[in-house]
Amino acid sequence: MKPDCLSVKQNSFPHGRLNKITDVKGVLVGHSTIDKENSKTGVTVIMPSDKNIFAHKLTAAVHVINGYGKTSGLMQIEELGILESPIALTNTLNVGLVQDALIGYMLEKSAEEGIEIKSINTVVGECNDSRINDISKRACKESNLLEAIRDAESDFAEGAVGAGRGTICHGLKGGIGSSSRIIDVNGHSFTLGVLVQSNYGKLEELNINGQDIGAEIEKLIQKDETAETGSIMIIAATDAPLSSRQLKRVLKRSQNGLARLGSITGSGSGEVVIGFSTANAVNIKDDSLVRTASELNENYINLFFKAMCEAVEEAVLHSLLASDEDTALDGKKIHSLKEFTNLLKNPSGHGLL
Amino acid sequence: MKPDCLSVKQNSFPHGRLNKITDVKGVLVGHSTIDKENSKTGVTVIMPSDKNIFAHKLTAAVHVINGYGKTSGLMQIEELGILESPIALTNTLNVGLVQDALIGYMLEKSAEEGIEIKSINTVVGECNDSRINDISKRACKESNLLEAIRDAESDFAEGAVGAGRGTICHGLKGGIGSSSRIIDVNGHSFTLGVLVQSNYGKLEELNINGQDIGAEIEKLIQKDETAETGSIMIIAATDAPLSSRQLKRVLKRSQNGLARLGSITGSGSGEVVIGFSTANAVNIKDDSLVRTASELNENYINLFFKAMCEAVEEAVLHSLLASDEDTALDGKKIHSLKEFTNLLKNPSGHGLL
Amino acid sequence: MKPDCLSVKQNSFPHGRLNKITDVKGVLVGHSTIDKENSKTGVTVIMPSDKNIFAHKLTAAVHVINGYGKTSGLMQIEELGILESPIALTNTLNVGLVQDALIGYMLEKSAEEGIEIKSINTVVGECNDSRINDISKRACKESNLLEAIRDAESDFAEGAVGAGRGTICHGLKGGIGSSSRIIDVNGHSFTLGVLVQSNYGKLEELNINGQDIGAEIEKLIQKDETAETGSIMIIAATDAPLSSRQLKRVLKRSQNGLARLGSITGSGSGEVVIGFSTANAVNIKDDSLVRTASELNENYINLFFKAMCEAVEEAVLHSLLASDEDTALDGKKIHSLKEFTNLLKNPSGHGLL
Amino acid sequence: MKPDCLSVKQNSFPHGRLNKITDVKGVLVGHSTIDKENSKTGVTVIMPSDKNIFAHKLTAAVHVINGYGKTSGLMQIEELGILESPIALTNTLNVGLVQDALIGYMLEKSAEEGIEIKSINTVVGECNDSRINDISKRACKESNLLEAIRDAESDFAEGAVGAGRGTICHGLKGGIGSSSRIIDVNGHSFTLGVLVQSNYGKLEELNINGQDIGAEIEKLIQKDETAETGSIMIIAATDAPLSSRQLKRVLKRSQNGLARLGSITGSGSGEVVIGFSTANAVNIKDDSLVRTASELNENYINLFFKAMCEAVEEAVLHSLLASDEDTALDGKKIHSLKEFTNLLKNPSGHGLL
Repeated sequence: MKPDCLSVKQNSFPHGRLNKITDVKGVLVGHSTIDKENSKTGVTVIMPSDKNIFAHKLTAAVHVINGYGKTSGLMQIEELGILESPIALTNTLNVGLVQDALIGYMLEKSAEEGIEIKSINTVVGECNDSRINDISKRACKESNLLEAIRDAESDFAEGAVGAGRGTICHGLKGGIGSSSRIIDVNGHSFTLGVLVQSNYGKLEELNINGQDIGAEIEKLIQKDETAETGSIMIIAATDAPLSSRQLKRVLKRSQNGLARLGSITGSGSGEVVIGFSTANAVNIKDDSLVRTASELNENYINLFFKAMCEAVEEAVLHSLLASDEDTALDGKKIHSLKEFTNLLKNPSGHGLL
Repeated sequence: MKPDCLSVKQNSFPHGRLNKITDVKGVLVGHSTIDKENSKTGVTVIMPSDKNIFAHKLTAAVHVINGYGKTSGLMQIEELGILESPIALTNTLNVGLVQDALIGYMLEKSAEEGIEIKSINTVVGECNDSRINDISKRACKESNLLEAIRDAESDFAEGAVGAGRGTICHGLKGGIGSSSRIIDVNGHSFTLGVLVQSNYGKLEELNINGQDIGAEIEKLIQKDETAETGSIMIIAATDAPLSSRQLKRVLKRSQNGLARLGSITGSGSGEVVIGFSTANAVNIKDDSLVRTASELNENYINLFFKAMCEAVEEAVLHSLLASDEDTALDGKKIHSLKEFTNLLKNPSGHGLL
Repeated sequence: MKPDCLSVKQNSFPHGRLNKITDVKGVLVGHSTIDKENSKTGVTVIMPSDKNIFAHKLTAAVHVINGYGKTSGLMQIEELGILESPIALTNTLNVGLVQDALIGYMLEKSAEEGIEIKSINTVVGECNDSRINDISKRACKESNLLEAIRDAESDFAEGAVGAGRGTICHGLKGGIGSSSRIIDVNGHSFTLGVLVQSNYGKLEELNINGQDIGAEIEKLIQKDETAETGSIMIIAATDAPLSSRQLKRVLKRSQNGLARLGSITGSGSGEVVIGFSTANAVNIKDDSLVRTASELNENYINLFFKAMCEAVEEAVLHSLLASDEDTALDGKKIHSLKEFTNLLKNPSGHGLL
Repeated sequence: MKPDCLSVKQNSFPHGRLNKITDVKGVLVGHSTIDKENSKTGVTVIMPSDKNIFAHKLTAAVHVINGYGKTSGLMQIEELGILESPIALTNTLNVGLVQDALIGYMLEKSAEEGIEIKSINTVVGECNDSRINDISKRACKESNLLEAIRDAESDFAEGAVGAGRGTICHGLKGGIGSSSRIIDVNGHSFTLGVLVQSNYGKLEELNINGQDIGAEIEKLIQKDETAETGSIMIIAATDAPLSSRQLKRVLKRSQNGLARLGSITGSGSGEVVIGFSTANAVNIKDDSLVRTASELNENYINLFFKAMCEAVEEAVLHSLLASDEDTALDGKKIHSLKEFTNLLKNPSGHGLL
């Protein structure tokens, strides 16, 4: 069981069983981690559904907070509002290769199931892990994507694993983090889950629960003058029947979650949010002229906005708290937030570890 | 001199002389306040330039954080990247009338100067002040717009004045607030100014300098169950030579400033940001084929991002701190943040009053 | 019965009974025309539904082809995907006044029906009719909006009426035009209707059914050197269950319809498309958590794309063919396309008059 | 010398020396064509500059007409308004691999020049050539990208070459096509060039110079019932000093050019436009705080709008006229427009071949 990382305020939501994106039924996450010499990187995959997602497409949306990034697959989601492939995350210079591998995987898997693919919109996100990982080596190979898919499970690891192996967030060791929220309303129970690959922000700006912890830590360690060249990938999943338009509105609240931690959304930070709903899946064989879909009454959408703010904030914190200290390629120490949890004041009394 | 409302963190920016949007040279702000019986509303105008702005157009940009609002004039700014009229703020149901009055004012004023206007893109923003103001009366008249323009000055009033007369922000009395930041870099000194009409948010979510002050206040007063139907208009001005694209990037950071105060960017809140630069004004008589314009090197834009986050946060705080308590139409008391400043912890030691 | 204006190609769609937007059940259109001295302008309203549309909101979308225009009400439709007011069209400098009048009308009408309105997103579009109309007089008054609403009917007039009284399109007299298409598919029959206020384009570019008729006409008349400062408002209605996202995709095909007539989408032309579906209306009293909505299978959407191209093209032609010649304020003759129909070759044999 | 494909109307523009995108100084285009058994595909590259474009970035913009496509690299251009890599075109399922190869090429080339790349936004567009090419084989390899780059020249081939080897446009054999326009104004001479990879549209909709040639051809050949699954990539280059915002406005007029040929912009067609200006290149070593850039006076932009409409229309025609007939994987003949040029009426007397 993971710790509660945030002071839980009045009217907030409980988290799901694992407090991970996989609390949304059908969602699995897998990693392939590369950890040798100067290659410290990897691949993380989010499998959105236990069915072949190309054959059972999901409602989806994207939102670009800041577009200094190289994620592929966004345009078609924006146009059609659907997701038809797993989502892979990796390092910046491996986006092309991982996309190629993901296309290959989907072709082969679908062929086995008798589904011919002539066109598929694969989604690959990235962060730039070049301070810890010699990114020019482009260490990820097709086998890493396949390994991450095979590894996919509910209770996946967080921290410096998979695509989070080499990332740095707010000057500390970042990585993969996740969280979930349960929204109980009028007899229904919906789950919203978030996964982040955290790689953005300056230490001096880090704020946790209102405490300028980054500034406090900076006094204790060697000042890092490296310019920020970050990014954060945010993946959101829900079982609530949100339309693509509604999902996009929810995704936009990610920026609030990041801002609570002190982010100014730096210019060089690719901040991209991709979300999907497991409700209203569309079978490609369904050729009926008119379909019937369920849709959340917009009057209730603030519940999801609030949950999204919290879940993003907490997923980033989890990424920081699950990552051990590391060493950059230039020999500098990359500290872990774990070293400084004793500094944290936690007004609500919830423990961090 | 206004108080410093925020803990000034390392690397932050000093404010300008007035700590208002009018610290940007040429910018003036005026109010017309209606305060009778159930009509408590008004008009605020931002005069972007001391020249006729239709004849000397300014580079501009807009950003819609949440589009549940009725602001007019955004489309053409988005297309052309220019501002050609003063910006007026009022209540939701007076947007049409104030726009009509603003068109009339610009036609008349320009005619006097020998400039014929056959088309003009006027900009009118709004917040819904219907809890304090009987909005269905549409109390603002042409005379209010004209009065606000005549009233325009540098050291304008903040708080429950003009278009801020009837607004409520985070459950407390909101209004007009402003702030500025001076960005000194490589021998240049740029000013960024912000003005807000604050009318968004729930009390329980208000957070100041990391303190959940809203929750603390809620324990002391009668719980307000009224659904949030807010909005915030944010106007930004700068003398830095930002292109329309760069300005838009700066405006997007407003969301971070609001999130620092606890906002979840509620569904019913129209959150609109309009910005302009006083550099590179274009004279409509200039018919040269190719112009030369100065433009900030994008490598330095993070300075403006950070300044925008701070300036928006502080402008909202000023709107709260400058407004006195009030009474809603239903008789409920609308408290002022001033009543609760004793609760505020201020780690940096800067006083709030 | 109106003439068929286009060569009907293989696989095209038949038009509805009136070949007007009002072939979509529930939609009515009314005009108020001002025709005195130098004031030749007016108001046209599209009533989207026979119910109070604020209380029974419709799915809607907008698309801006070129944003040099002053239409109000677009932002909220973009955010929420709903229409909650009639759509009014007028001249550029009367947008504010007509919006104010429309707000007033909706408040009063709704109050009579026991519906309290504290916020409403009214939609007002415009074209610049300043060559024929002394636009600085802002001749439209509240009474014109009210008259147009009272006048609303199915078999409304086209041509130089209402908001089309003073417009010029492709150098000829433009105005209001309309058309409709019936899409019969898999046992269902859907109607798509379009209304335009046409005011864009140069004569030399006008092309009808592939014939450079504009260039031919230009040889016969006095060359008009006036710079283009046009615009076109396009309103689309359908009874097909299109989501807001799907509607927007359909609206984007308006540009194809205009391009078929030779348009280059000039820089100074405000080209705005607003569409709504009468399916899946939402009652504001419906507070159910999850709704069920019908939605067209995207595999069939090309039918609507094709119909939209044709309907827009034809609506513009109707606006030209229904308008008589006129005189500009500077005394120049504004010819009517009617004068030149003898020049038209019509390969499909359909008559124009 | 290529034929004039369009009736040149009054006020239109002359084309450049080659009537290709390479008439813009510094631009080169290369192909690598795969033509064996069932693999008939390839790679085409547009080299935007004779300098290392990562080190000398160009002003750029993108516009998505219809987002059913997989182009990578758009997001960062949208955010920053710059292009920093060559543009490669290929088939849909090779996008990932070609992106990976392009990243590799840029890393290696830049390393040789002493430029270290830790992040680069490569741009790869695609069309789906699966009717002629067994796309599931993903036949393009890194060597094809490298060959296309080595092959880059001014007077490049058009038609069924490179990424155009297997494409189909309006039911006929499509491919790579190009054109250019010279805009002489006020003593300046600007060039606008366009290159397309044409793969969209139905035969029945093809219209050339106002003639429904598609319908005429359809009567002569076997009806093709295959559903449209097209796309078109459009690349535009200019030496005019357009800002990113202005460029985007120009790119939007591509839709008009396509519509003139009868396109309804089908739902399954990925229609993406990418443009760049060779004026105002930015050296990454330039760290000056404020730069000076030239910018076209917006009053003159209609010249570029008109030229863009024409250039896109003509580039598609060139792609059709330069491609020979072919055979689909299912054995069906894919005709060439060349077979039917005798049907074309050409009112302006310009020959097509």
